[in-house]
Amino acid sequence: MTGTGNQTRHHETQIVADPDVPLVRITREFDAPRKLVFRAHTDPELVAQWMGPNSTQNRIDHWDCRTGGSWRHVSIQEGQEYGFYGSFHEVRPDELIVQTFTLEGMPDGVALEKLVLEDLGDGRTRLTATSLVDSFADRDAFVASGMEVGVNEGYEKLDELLARG
Amino acid sequence: MTGTGNQTRHHETQIVADPDVPLVRITREFDAPRKLVFRAHTDPELVAQWMGPNSTQNRIDHWDCRTGGSWRHVSIQEGQEYGFYGSFHEVRPDELIVQTFTLEGMPDGVALEKLVLEDLGDGRTRLTATSLVDSFADRDAFVASGMEVGVNEGYEKLDELLARG
Repeated sequence: MTGTGNQTRHHETQIVADPDVPLVRITREFDAPRKLVFRAHTDPELVAQWMGPNSTQNRIDHWDCRTGGSWRHVSIQEGQEYGFYGSFHEVRPDELIVQTFTLEGMPDGVALEKLVLEDLGDGRTRLTATSLVDSFADRDAFVASGMEVGVNEGYEKLDELLARG
Repeated sequence: MTGTGNQTRHHETQIVADPDVPLVRITREFDAPRKLVFRAHTDPELVAQWMGPNSTQNRIDHWDCRTGGSWRHVSIQEGQEYGFYGSFHEVRPDELIVQTFTLEGMPDGVALEKLVLEDLGDGRTRLTATSLVDSFADRDAFVASGMEVGVNEGYEKLDELLARG
């Protein structure tokens, strides 16, 4: 790949387990304006195109992306279906999404997730996504589960989606 | 007060700041069946009668108490109105309510709250309510805010409401 100015740069995804609280913090930059990165997180047709590892497909069952709304989606991997659901506690256009997250079949496990988008200028955006649970053991099991594959592959698909404009 | 068997006993409310995670845990017993304690947390007309300190009145603005629903209420103290809102992540009849909680005017502060009701037999119920935030400083400020007055007075009003059946 030659370094022409218009090409999407490769960005590292940082995944940090907070030392003080049972929280995971994901940081990633995108070569796209904040408005587009936000839309790719709120428009269900776009979300379904990039979320999760390459080995899965997404089906959005329910998606009411507004403060006080809720969502459910299904991730399909080798014929198996995994359901996830939650509520949108707050949706602030282009800036912030606060939501809850539960994997079905583990009904007592719930994470509080916060997505913050910062405008870095020059059409670039920094995403910070945190996921808070009530136990370090659950947080550490989540980090050890191989979740970084889905995060990294998902954001690479998101890079491609954003490059198409 | 003499100790006749039918009288409501005085129950202590335990409020514990967790040493390991930024969470407050409230534990309280009630001399009422779990179904009634649950209803007093989900029926907005009942909630408005007992929630919060004696010095406030409640107005429920919006209350859709189901998994995926949302709520907003206003607490009125000396003519001042304080708004609160959140989502119901999960409502499991008689057992569990998981919800989010934000005080308006502090839009980036959000707590993940879990209410668990246990049937102790003999028409008694144990309530455990946890509130999780992402910082020990915010948790400690909440505990230091005088919140125990509202919790204790609220549960005394709930005792009276439950005694009426």
